[in-house]
Amino acid sequence: MNNFDFYNPVKILFGKGKISELKKHIPAKANVLVTFGGGSIKKNGVYDQVMAALEGYNVKEFGGIEPNPHFETLMKAVEVVKAEKIDFLLAVGGGSVLDGTKFIAAASCYKGEDAWDILAKRARIESAIDLGAVLTLAATGSEMNSGGVITKVATKEKLAFGSPLLFPKFSILDPEVTYSLPKRQISNGIADAFVHVMEQYLTYPVNSPVQDRFAEGLLMTLIEEGTKAYNSETPNYDEYANVMWAATMALNGLIGAGVQSDWATHMMGHELTAFHGIDHAVTLAIVLPGLMTHLKDKRSVKLLQYAERVWNITEGSEEERKAMAIVKTEDFFNRIGIQTRLSQHNVGKDTIDTIIKRFTDRQLPSIGMLPDVKIEDAEKILLDRL
Amino acid sequence: MNNFDFYNPVKILFGKGKISELKKHIPAKANVLVTFGGGSIKKNGVYDQVMAALEGYNVKEFGGIEPNPHFETLMKAVEVVKAEKIDFLLAVGGGSVLDGTKFIAAASCYKGEDAWDILAKRARIESAIDLGAVLTLAATGSEMNSGGVITKVATKEKLAFGSPLLFPKFSILDPEVTYSLPKRQISNGIADAFVHVMEQYLTYPVNSPVQDRFAEGLLMTLIEEGTKAYNSETPNYDEYANVMWAATMALNGLIGAGVQSDWATHMMGHELTAFHGIDHAVTLAIVLPGLMTHLKDKRSVKLLQYAERVWNITEGSEEERKAMAIVKTEDFFNRIGIQTRLSQHNVGKDTIDTIIKRFTDRQLPSIGMLPDVKIEDAEKILLDRL
Repeated sequence: MNNFDFYNPVKILFGKGKISELKKHIPAKANVLVTFGGGSIKKNGVYDQVMAALEGYNVKEFGGIEPNPHFETLMKAVEVVKAEKIDFLLAVGGGSVLDGTKFIAAASCYKGEDAWDILAKRARIESAIDLGAVLTLAATGSEMNSGGVITKVATKEKLAFGSPLLFPKFSILDPEVTYSLPKRQISNGIADAFVHVMEQYLTYPVNSPVQDRFAEGLLMTLIEEGTKAYNSETPNYDEYANVMWAATMALNGLIGAGVQSDWATHMMGHELTAFHGIDHAVTLAIVLPGLMTHLKDKRSVKLLQYAERVWNITEGSEEERKAMAIVKTEDFFNRIGIQTRLSQHNVGKDTIDTIIKRFTDRQLPSIGMLPDVKIEDAEKILLDRL
Repeated sequence: MNNFDFYNPVKILFGKGKISELKKHIPAKANVLVTFGGGSIKKNGVYDQVMAALEGYNVKEFGGIEPNPHFETLMKAVEVVKAEKIDFLLAVGGGSVLDGTKFIAAASCYKGEDAWDILAKRARIESAIDLGAVLTLAATGSEMNSGGVITKVATKEKLAFGSPLLFPKFSILDPEVTYSLPKRQISNGIADAFVHVMEQYLTYPVNSPVQDRFAEGLLMTLIEEGTKAYNSETPNYDEYANVMWAATMALNGLIGAGVQSDWATHMMGHELTAFHGIDHAVTLAIVLPGLMTHLKDKRSVKLLQYAERVWNITEGSEEERKAMAIVKTEDFFNRIGIQTRLSQHNVGKDTIDTIIKRFTDRQLPSIGMLPDVKIEDAEKILLDRL
């Protein structure tokens, strides 16, 4: 096992009716800015629940944070924060709203000239406004971590940022809040969480059975409960709850502590979203089978372990077991309604060329955090997914 | 899954050489009281490492915290804290030193007349001195939770306490620090952690696959890595590291979030320690097989799941599989050198009578947190272990 530091102070409030406990967790007399997305929370009752729970606070609101939240939009929220002397941000939404709100929290306190430097130059975050979250979509894990990803429309760039100051003080996870989601968002959430686990699991063995078993437990839960949740005609509490908790645990630092992480699938996926607006999770489901195929020899040990423990593939040669695991993985994405070929999303070789040129211009020594996906590997992986 | 709150802000610093980072985590100019046990840290180099890392601080020390730490001893440390204006406690030891130090942290700030009320009357802890830990023994999980167990010698009482104020600010887990431990302490730690998991796992199903898979992963790690660590002639880093991380994860709130917990094994075990001084972990290994046998029908679902997933027992009738799982569990304890019969520890029926009388005097409606172990069940379980 590698040395590691692990720290995660987010208070999780999980279950039915938990939104009503908001007041216990936001300082009295706080000026609260409620941030949200396209307004679905006003249709499904979540907005009303939150506002009822916030009675007595000075509350402002900022809606319209889009999927793959835009730097340009978030900077408007920063103006509201400053004008209204906001001292607590309450994100009500999925990963995009949470990521965006984390950026608002940091950018509102940023002393430099251009808050984009937080992303482009990884400028150090010295302070941030406190934030909490009401999660409305199980997917990104943003509710229990301290990072986010922001897109600049002007330049079609999608970049990550983070700071321990950006851990939510609390996150409310009420699975019932997710009942009204369209199936597309359910399946996207499942795929997103699944690939988060794989980025931290399907790498190189470092003799870390706790982390491995935890990761495998999350993958099995996402496969079993995710498939049920996707197929059930009416939402089932436990199915939705188990997917939600698995998604949160998938990216809160725990399964990545002491092991090697990759994130090459995300780096390639981000570009597909940036250029074509394909849903984040869908890009991951497109790229992952290609990455697994391209690295099936280098990452053989973990891929065989994955085949056996997650898919119960115990027969056949090593090559056959690895190939079967990759097939099962892509089939899982397909079974929850995700199309995993670039051509199905009208993406052709020209886009791959553009992405590879961008990687080349950035002079990336490798695409992820491991040295085994270089720019030429990324090209092969993406071409394999046409 | 049941509703739950989960909060664990302990910063874990895991790995080789981590003690040298102490200064980053203790406020400059703090008056530090280093607490420890019988002095083994002075022989194995840990004391020297800690003192070197604390250079520049005003450091006092308090040694002699015994296994099953005594209220009487800890109150002497409280006097030191007050006399020396201590504002940071650094526990260097195993679960007893950590539990004891948490009690010192709370008792030093206690405004009531008798700090024993924190245990006997569960008096509310309003404030506590900050503490950190350097763990020297993987076992209790105290390094990543906010509770402890204290013994009053005068009355042979062993009681629990806890408060979110008692989470260590940080815990340093360097597996190399545990290399010099006698095998008896290694096996005790493994058994202790194993039963911690079982108390939160072998109860009743609430459809919580993430928690179940995590618990099973810890159990398998403790069996596999624990057996290797116990049997290896010279300490192996990964074996010790995996046992250490599994023990920490076994009792940090995570696998117990949203599920039913029991703790009846602990309640009975505590009495065996209080009356006979048997090592805490040994008492758990004595009691658990009896509890499993007595509840094999009521807790059938989880016991069968345990049999299949942890021990790979898939053949035979349900009765046979359950019986085999119980045999395997006791055999595992025996294989790491723990004697699991009361008679092997010179405990007879007279002690059981005394324990049952004490439970009766306390008018306990049930022994653990579930209603399925009443006083008469405890008697049968203990008699089964003679």
